Amino acid sequence: MEVSELDKYGICDGISEIIVTCGIENPNAAPIGLIRKDNRIFIRLYKGSTTYENVKLEKIFAANVTCDPLLFVKSTFSNLEDENFKYHPLNSQNIPLLKNSVSSVIFRCEEIKHTEQAMTAEIIPIYAVANYHRPKAINRGLTAVIEAAIHATRYELTGIDKFLDLIDQCLETTYKCGGQREKDAAEILLNEIGEIKKLVSGGKDTE
Amino acid sequence: MEVSELDKYGICDGISEIIVTCGIENPNAAPIGLIRKDNRIFIRLYKGSTTYENVKLEKIFAANVTCDPLLFVKSTFSNLEDENFKYHPLNSQNIPLLKNSVSSVIFRCEEIKHTEQAMTAEIIPIYAVANYHRPKAINRGLTAVIEAAIHATRYELTGIDKFLDLIDQCLETTYKCGGQREKDAAEILLNEIGEIKKLVSGGKDTE
Repeated sequence: MEVSELDKYGICDGISEIIVTCGIENPNAAPIGLIRKDNRIFIRLYKGSTTYENVKLEKIFAANVTCDPLLFVKSTFSNLEDENFKYHPLNSQNIPLLKNSVSSVIFRCEEIKHTEQAMTAEIIPIYAVANYHRPKAINRGLTAVIEAAIHATRYELTGIDKFLDLIDQCLETTYKCGGQREKDAAEILLNEIGEIKKLVSGGKDTE
Repeated sequence: MEVSELDKYGICDGISEIIVTCGIENPNAAPIGLIRKDNRIFIRLYKGSTTYENVKLEKIFAANVTCDPLLFVKSTFSNLEDENFKYHPLNSQNIPLLKNSVSSVIFRCEEIKHTEQAMTAEIIPIYAVANYHRPKAINRGLTAVIEAAIHATRYELTGIDKFLDLIDQCLETTYKCGGQREKDAAEILLNEIGEIKKLVSGGKDTE
Protein backbone atom coordinates (compact mmCIF):
# COMPACT_ATOMS: atom_id res chain seq x y z
CA MET A 1 0.00 0.00 0.00
CA GLU A 2 1.04 3.61 -0.59
CA VAL A 3 2.12 5.89 2.25
CA SER A 4 -0.43 8.49 1.04
CA GLU A 5 -3.24 6.00 1.86
CA LEU A 6 -2.34 6.31 5.55
CA ASP A 7 -4.34 9.58 5.70
CA LYS A 8 -7.41 7.31 5.83
CA TYR A 9 -6.04 5.56 8.92
CA GLY A 10 -5.11 8.71 10.83
CA ILE A 11 -1.35 8.62 10.32
CA CYS A 12 -0.90 11.99 8.65
CA ASP A 13 2.12 14.23 8.08
CA GLY A 14 4.03 15.38 11.16
CA ILE A 15 4.53 13.19 14.21
CA SER A 16 1.67 10.83 15.07
CA GLU A 17 1.52 9.65 18.68
CA ILE A 18 0.51 6.02 18.36
CA ILE A 19 0.91 2.83 20.38
CA VAL A 20 3.30 0.31 18.84
CA THR A 21 2.43 -3.35 19.34
CA CYS A 22 5.09 -5.91 18.49
CA GLY A 23 6.60 -9.23 19.56
CA ILE A 24 5.33 -12.40 17.88
CA GLU A 25 6.05 -14.59 20.92
CA ASN A 26 5.46 -12.08 23.72
CA PRO A 27 3.28 -9.17 22.61
CA ASN A 28 4.27 -5.78 23.95
CA ALA A 29 2.81 -2.27 23.68
CA ALA A 30 4.53 1.12 23.96
CA PRO A 31 3.69 4.70 22.92
CA ILE A 32 5.89 6.01 20.09
CA GLY A 33 5.89 9.03 17.77
CA LEU A 34 5.90 8.00 14.10
CA ILE A 35 7.43 10.59 11.80
CA ARG A 36 5.80 11.12 8.41
CA LYS A 37 7.51 13.57 6.06
CA ASP A 38 7.43 13.91 2.28
CA ASN A 39 5.45 10.67 2.04
CA ARG A 40 8.05 8.63 3.87
CA ILE A 41 7.63 7.28 7.39
CA PHE A 42 10.26 6.70 10.03
CA ILE A 43 10.46 5.27 13.52
CA ARG A 44 13.17 5.80 16.13
CA LEU A 45 13.49 3.30 18.97
CA TYR A 46 15.83 3.71 21.91
CA LYS A 47 18.02 0.89 23.17
CA GLY A 48 16.94 -0.85 26.33
CA SER A 49 13.25 -1.06 25.53
CA THR A 50 11.31 -4.24 24.75
CA THR A 51 10.02 -2.55 21.59
CA TYR A 52 13.62 -1.96 20.43
CA GLU A 53 14.54 -5.62 20.97
CA ASN A 54 11.40 -6.97 19.28
CA VAL A 55 11.56 -4.69 16.25
CA LYS A 56 15.32 -5.21 15.82
CA LEU A 57 14.70 -8.98 15.73
CA GLU A 58 11.40 -9.23 13.82
CA LYS A 59 11.47 -6.04 11.70
CA ILE A 60 7.68 -5.86 11.82
CA PHE A 61 5.23 -4.10 14.14
CA ALA A 62 1.79 -2.47 14.23
CA ALA A 63 1.03 1.21 14.83
CA ASN A 64 -2.30 1.61 16.63
CA VAL A 65 -4.20 4.91 16.60
CA THR A 66 -6.13 5.58 19.81
CA CYS A 67 -7.22 8.54 21.94
CA ASP A 68 -7.47 6.49 25.13
CA PRO A 69 -5.29 8.20 27.77
CA LEU A 70 -5.26 5.09 29.99
CA LEU A 71 -3.68 2.99 27.23
CA PHE A 72 -1.03 5.67 26.63
CA VAL A 73 -0.11 6.05 30.29
CA LYS A 74 -0.21 2.34 31.15
CA SER A 75 1.92 1.36 28.13
CA THR A 76 4.45 4.10 28.93
CA PHE A 77 5.48 2.38 32.16
CA SER A 78 4.59 -1.29 31.72
CA ASN A 79 3.06 -3.69 29.25
CA LEU A 80 -0.69 -3.80 28.68
CA GLU A 81 -2.75 -6.73 29.92
CA ASP A 82 -3.28 -9.65 27.46
CA GLU A 83 -6.94 -8.67 27.04
CA ASN A 84 -5.87 -5.51 25.17
CA PHE A 85 -4.28 -7.42 22.28
CA LYS A 86 -5.73 -9.12 19.25
CA TYR A 87 -3.80 -10.80 16.42
CA HIS A 88 -3.64 -10.47 12.66
CA PRO A 89 -2.27 -13.47 10.71
CA LEU A 90 0.41 -12.47 8.20
CA ASN A 91 2.83 -14.86 6.46
CA SER A 92 2.16 -17.59 9.02
CA GLN A 93 2.86 -15.22 11.91
CA ASN A 94 0.37 -13.60 14.28
CA ILE A 95 1.06 -9.86 14.51
CA PRO A 96 -0.27 -8.32 17.74
CA LEU A 97 -2.61 -5.34 17.36
CA LEU A 98 -4.40 -3.21 19.94
CA LYS A 99 -7.94 -4.58 20.29
CA ASN A 100 -9.78 -1.29 20.76
CA SER A 101 -7.79 0.89 18.38
CA VAL A 102 -9.38 3.46 16.10
CA SER A 103 -7.15 2.03 13.37
CA SER A 104 -4.11 -0.25 13.13
CA VAL A 105 -1.38 -0.34 10.48
CA ILE A 106 1.26 -3.09 10.17
CA PHE A 107 4.67 -1.82 9.06
CA ARG A 108 7.79 -3.60 7.85
CA CYS A 109 11.15 -1.99 8.64
CA GLU A 110 13.59 -1.10 5.89
CA GLU A 111 16.76 0.97 5.82
CA ILE A 112 17.60 0.34 9.46
CA LYS A 113 20.35 2.53 10.90
CA HIS A 114 21.92 1.97 14.29
CA THR A 115 23.44 4.71 16.43
CA GLU A 116 24.95 4.47 19.90
CA GLN A 117 21.60 5.05 21.60
CA ALA A 118 18.93 4.07 19.11
CA MET A 119 17.87 2.53 15.84
CA THR A 120 16.07 4.46 13.12
CA ALA A 121 14.16 2.73 10.33
CA GLU A 122 12.21 3.79 7.30
CA ILE A 123 8.98 1.83 7.58
CA ILE A 124 6.65 0.52 4.86
CA PRO A 125 2.92 0.00 5.47
CA ILE A 126 1.76 -3.48 4.44
CA TYR A 127 -1.69 -3.83 6.01
CA ALA A 128 -4.19 -1.40 7.54
CA VAL A 129 -7.60 -1.60 9.19
CA ALA A 130 -9.91 1.20 10.39
CA ASN A 131 -12.39 0.26 13.11
CA TYR A 132 -15.62 1.92 14.17
CA HIS A 133 -14.88 4.99 16.23
CA ARG A 134 -16.86 7.79 17.76
CA PRO A 135 -15.99 11.40 17.11
CA LYS A 136 -14.27 13.16 19.99
CA ALA A 137 -13.85 16.88 20.57
CA ILE A 138 -10.37 18.12 21.36
CA ASN A 139 -9.82 17.85 25.12
CA ARG A 140 -6.80 19.74 26.48
CA GLY A 141 -6.73 17.36 29.46
CA LEU A 142 -6.09 14.40 27.15
CA THR A 143 -3.01 15.77 25.45
CA ALA A 144 -1.79 17.23 28.73
CA VAL A 145 -1.67 13.81 30.42
CA ILE A 146 0.14 12.35 27.40
CA GLU A 147 2.63 15.27 27.53
CA ALA A 148 3.04 14.55 31.26
CA ALA A 149 3.84 10.89 30.51
CA ILE A 150 6.51 12.01 28.02
CA HIS A 151 8.03 14.34 30.65
CA ALA A 152 7.93 11.45 33.15
CA THR A 153 10.06 9.23 30.88
CA ARG A 154 12.52 12.11 30.51
CA TYR A 155 12.63 12.52 34.28
CA GLU A 156 13.22 8.78 34.65
CA LEU A 157 16.16 9.00 32.23
CA THR A 158 17.76 12.19 33.57
CA GLY A 159 16.54 12.82 37.14
CA ILE A 160 16.27 16.53 36.26
CA ASP A 161 13.72 18.29 38.51
CA LYS A 162 12.40 20.66 35.84
CA PHE A 163 10.51 17.70 34.34
CA LEU A 164 8.59 17.37 37.62
CA ASP A 165 7.48 21.01 37.30
CA LEU A 166 6.38 20.39 33.70
CA ILE A 167 4.43 17.30 34.82
CA ASP A 168 2.67 19.41 37.50
CA GLN A 169 1.69 22.02 34.90
CA CYS A 170 0.33 19.36 32.53
CA LEU A 171 -1.65 17.55 35.20
CA GLU A 172 -3.18 20.84 36.36
CA THR A 173 -4.67 21.10 32.85
CA THR A 174 -5.77 17.45 33.00
CA TYR A 175 -7.60 17.88 36.31
CA LYS A 176 -9.21 21.09 35.01
CA CYS A 177 -10.18 19.99 31.49
CA GLY A 178 -10.09 16.19 31.41
CA GLY A 179 -12.93 13.73 31.76
CA GLN A 180 -12.89 10.82 34.20
CA ARG A 181 -10.68 8.67 31.95
CA GLU A 182 -8.07 11.42 31.69
CA LYS A 183 -8.14 11.85 35.48
CA ASP A 184 -7.78 8.10 36.01
CA ALA A 185 -4.74 8.17 33.68
CA ALA A 186 -3.31 11.09 35.71
CA GLU A 187 -3.68 9.06 38.93
CA ILE A 188 -1.76 6.13 37.44
CA LEU A 189 0.90 8.53 36.21
CA LEU A 190 1.28 10.12 39.66
CA ASN A 191 1.75 6.68 41.22
CA GLU A 192 4.41 5.82 38.64
CA ILE A 193 6.20 9.11 39.25
CA GLY A 194 6.22 8.32 42.95
CA GLU A 195 8.05 5.08 42.16
CA ILE A 196 10.44 6.79 39.72
CA LYS A 197 11.30 9.41 42.34
CA LYS A 198 12.39 6.66 44.72
CA LEU A 199 14.66 5.19 42.02
CA VAL A 200 16.06 8.61 41.08
CA SER A 201 16.95 9.33 44.68
CA GLY A 202 19.09 6.19 44.74
CA GLY A 203 16.48 3.69 45.80
CA LYS A 204 15.95 5.55 49.07
CA ASP A 205 12.44 6.36 50.11
CA THR A 206 12.79 9.99 51.20
CA GLU A 207 9.36 10.23 52.80
CA MET B 1 -32.32 14.42 23.58
CA GLU B 2 -30.41 13.30 26.68
CA VAL B 3 -27.03 14.78 27.62
CA SER B 4 -25.63 11.23 27.88
CA GLU B 5 -26.25 10.79 24.13
CA LEU B 6 -23.63 13.45 23.44
CA ASP B 7 -20.92 10.80 23.91
CA LYS B 8 -21.83 9.69 20.38
CA TYR B 9 -21.13 13.19 19.05
CA GLY B 10 -17.79 13.66 20.79
CA ILE B 11 -18.89 16.01 23.57
CA CYS B 12 -17.79 13.94 26.55
CA ASP B 13 -17.21 14.75 30.20
CA GLY B 14 -14.61 17.41 30.97
CA ILE B 15 -14.07 20.48 28.79
CA SER B 16 -14.59 19.98 25.04
CA GLU B 17 -12.84 22.49 22.79
CA ILE B 18 -15.40 23.10 20.06
CA ILE B 19 -16.27 25.90 17.64
CA VAL B 20 -19.52 27.69 18.45
CA THR B 21 -21.55 28.90 15.47
CA CYS B 22 -24.40 31.31 16.15
CA GLY B 23 -26.22 34.37 14.81
CA ILE B 24 -29.35 33.79 12.75
CA GLU B 25 -28.86 37.00 10.76
CA ASN B 26 -25.08 37.20 10.68
CA PRO B 27 -23.45 33.84 11.31
CA ASN B 28 -20.35 33.91 13.45
CA ALA B 29 -17.84 31.28 14.62
CA ALA B 30 -15.62 31.24 17.71
CA PRO B 31 -13.72 28.57 19.66
CA ILE B 32 -15.18 27.86 23.11
CA GLY B 33 -14.71 25.24 25.84
CA LEU B 34 -17.99 23.50 26.73
CA ILE B 35 -18.07 22.14 30.25
CA ARG B 36 -19.79 18.79 30.80
CA LYS B 37 -20.03 17.59 34.38
CA ASP B 38 -22.42 15.15 36.07
CA ASN B 39 -24.46 14.97 32.86
CA ARG B 40 -25.08 18.70 32.74
CA ILE B 41 -23.49 21.04 30.22
CA PHE B 42 -22.52 24.66 30.65
CA ILE B 43 -21.11 27.47 28.54
CA ARG B 44 -19.41 30.65 29.70
CA LEU B 45 -19.21 33.60 27.29
CA TYR B 46 -17.29 36.77 28.00
CA LYS B 47 -18.77 40.21 27.34
CA GLY B 48 -17.58 42.04 24.28
CA SER B 49 -17.61 39.11 21.89
CA THR B 50 -20.00 38.60 18.97
CA THR B 51 -20.81 35.16 20.34
CA TYR B 52 -21.85 36.72 23.67
CA GLU B 53 -24.19 39.18 21.94
CA ASN B 54 -25.72 36.56 19.63
CA VAL B 55 -26.28 33.94 22.31
CA LYS B 56 -27.64 36.51 24.80
CA LEU B 57 -30.19 37.58 22.19
CA GLU B 58 -31.10 34.30 20.51
CA LYS B 59 -30.38 31.77 23.30
CA ILE B 60 -29.48 29.14 20.70
CA PHE B 61 -26.22 28.08 19.08
CA ALA B 62 -24.40 25.09 17.61
CA ALA B 63 -21.29 23.38 19.01
CA ASN B 64 -19.16 21.96 16.19
CA VAL B 65 -16.56 19.27 16.83
CA THR B 66 -13.49 19.55 14.58
CA CYS B 67 -9.77 18.83 14.72
CA ASP B 68 -8.90 21.40 12.05
CA PRO B 69 -6.28 23.75 13.51
CA LEU B 70 -6.88 26.37 10.79
CA LEU B 71 -10.55 26.71 11.78
CA PHE B 72 -9.59 27.08 15.45
CA VAL B 73 -6.95 29.72 14.85
CA LYS B 74 -8.90 31.70 12.24
CA SER B 75 -12.06 31.80 14.36
CA THR B 76 -10.06 32.88 17.42
CA PHE B 77 -9.19 36.21 15.83
CA SER B 78 -11.87 36.85 13.22
CA ASN B 79 -14.97 35.33 11.73
CA LEU B 80 -14.77 32.44 9.26
CA GLU B 81 -15.57 32.97 5.59
CA ASP B 82 -19.19 32.34 4.50
CA GLU B 83 -18.15 29.16 2.69
CA ASN B 84 -17.45 27.48 6.06
CA PHE B 85 -21.08 27.67 7.21
CA LYS B 86 -24.12 25.59 6.40
CA TYR B 87 -27.62 25.93 7.91
CA HIS B 88 -30.04 23.70 9.74
CA PRO B 89 -33.73 24.71 9.72
CA LEU B 90 -35.27 24.70 13.19
CA ASN B 91 -38.59 26.34 14.18
CA SER B 92 -38.56 28.50 11.06
CA GLN B 93 -35.04 29.71 11.77
CA ASN B 94 -31.81 28.73 10.03
CA ILE B 95 -29.19 27.80 12.62
CA PRO B 96 -25.62 28.14 11.30
CA LEU B 97 -23.40 25.06 11.58
CA LEU B 98 -19.80 24.46 10.55
CA LYS B 99 -19.85 22.79 7.13
CA ASN B 100 -16.92 20.43 7.60
CA SER B 101 -17.45 19.49 11.23
CA VAL B 102 -16.97 15.98 12.56
CA SER B 103 -20.27 16.52 14.38
CA SER B 104 -22.56 19.43 15.26
CA VAL B 105 -24.97 19.79 18.18
CA ILE B 106 -27.55 22.57 18.52
CA PHE B 107 -28.08 23.76 22.10
CA ARG B 108 -30.72 25.94 23.72
CA CYS B 109 -29.66 28.07 26.70
CA GLU B 110 -31.43 27.77 30.04
CA GLU B 111 -30.62 29.04 33.50
CA ILE B 112 -28.65 32.04 32.26
CA LYS B 113 -26.65 33.88 34.90
CA HIS B 114 -24.94 37.20 34.30
CA THR B 115 -21.82 38.38 36.11
CA GLU B 116 -19.84 41.57 35.63
CA GLN B 117 -17.65 40.03 32.94
CA ALA B 118 -19.57 37.11 31.49
CA MET B 119 -22.73 35.10 31.15
CA THR B 120 -22.97 31.43 32.14
CA ALA B 121 -25.77 29.19 30.91
CA GLU B 122 -26.79 25.63 31.40
CA ILE B 123 -27.37 24.36 27.88
CA ILE B 124 -29.75 21.68 26.58
CA PRO B 125 -29.01 19.67 23.41
CA ILE B 126 -31.91 19.70 20.96
CA TYR B 127 -30.44 18.37 17.70
CA ALA B 128 -27.25 16.54 16.78
CA VAL B 129 -25.61 15.22 13.61
CA ALA B 130 -22.43 13.17 13.17
CA ASN B 131 -20.73 13.44 9.78
CA TYR B 132 -18.27 11.13 8.09
CA HIS B 133 -14.83 11.61 9.58
CA ARG B 134 -11.46 9.99 9.23
CA PRO B 135 -9.56 8.72 12.23
CA LYS B 136 -6.64 10.89 13.31
CA ALA B 137 -3.74 9.98 15.56
CA ILE B 138 -2.95 12.35 18.40
CA ASN B 139 -0.62 15.06 17.12
CA ARG B 140 1.08 17.17 19.80
CA GLY B 141 1.51 19.96 17.25
CA LEU B 142 -2.26 20.26 16.87
CA THR B 143 -3.07 20.82 20.52
CA ALA B 144 0.01 23.00 20.91
CA VAL B 145 -1.19 25.49 18.29
CA ILE B 146 -4.64 25.58 19.92
CA GLU B 147 -2.98 26.16 23.32
CA ALA B 148 -0.96 28.94 21.68
CA ALA B 149 -4.15 30.57 20.38
CA ILE B 150 -5.61 30.47 23.91
CA HIS B 151 -2.44 32.12 25.28
CA ALA B 152 -2.67 34.74 22.50
CA THR B 153 -6.18 35.77 23.59
CA ARG B 154 -4.89 36.07 27.17
CA TYR B 155 -1.99 38.20 25.95
CA GLU B 156 -4.44 40.37 24.01
CA LEU B 157 -6.51 40.88 27.17
CA THR B 158 -3.68 41.46 29.63
CA GLY B 159 -0.54 42.45 27.71
CA ILE B 160 1.50 40.23 30.07
CA ASP B 161 4.75 39.07 28.41
CA LYS B 162 4.77 35.59 29.98
CA PHE B 163 2.02 34.63 27.51
CA LEU B 164 4.43 35.37 24.66
CA ASP B 165 6.92 32.90 26.16
CA LEU B 166 4.19 30.27 26.47
CA ILE B 167 3.20 30.86 22.83
CA ASP B 168 6.84 30.35 21.77
CA GLN B 169 7.01 27.05 23.67
CA CYS B 170 3.76 25.82 22.11
CA LEU B 171 4.74 26.78 18.58
CA GLU B 172 8.10 25.04 19.00
CA THR B 173 6.10 21.83 19.52
CA THR B 174 3.88 22.67 16.54
CA TYR B 175 6.83 23.17 14.17
CA LYS B 176 8.43 19.96 15.48
CA CYS B 177 5.38 17.66 15.57
CA GLY B 178 2.68 19.27 13.42
CA GLY B 179 1.72 18.53 9.86
CA GLN B 180 1.41 21.20 7.17
CA ARG B 181 -2.05 22.30 8.36
CA GLU B 182 -0.80 22.80 11.92
CA LYS B 183 2.17 24.82 10.59
CA ASP B 184 -0.14 26.94 8.40
CA ALA B 185 -2.25 27.64 11.50
CA ALA B 186 0.91 28.62 13.40
CA GLU B 187 1.83 31.10 10.64
CA ILE B 188 -1.60 32.76 10.85
CA LEU B 189 -1.27 32.88 14.64
CA LEU B 190 2.16 34.52 14.44
CA ASN B 191 0.78 37.20 12.10
CA GLU B 192 -2.09 37.87 14.50
CA ILE B 193 0.27 38.09 17.46
CA GLY B 194 2.31 40.65 15.51
CA GLU B 195 -0.83 42.77 15.19
CA ILE B 196 -1.79 42.28 18.85
CA LYS B 197 1.71 43.34 19.94
CA LYS B 198 1.26 46.64 18.11
CA LEU B 199 -2.05 47.22 19.91
CA VAL B 200 -0.59 46.23 23.29
CA SER B 201 2.26 48.70 22.84
CA GLY B 202 -0.27 51.52 22.47
CA GLY B 203 -0.83 51.35 18.76
CA LYS B 204 2.78 52.22 18.09
CA ASP B 205 4.65 50.13 15.60
CA THR B 206 7.91 49.54 17.47
CA GLU B 207 9.74 48.01 14.55
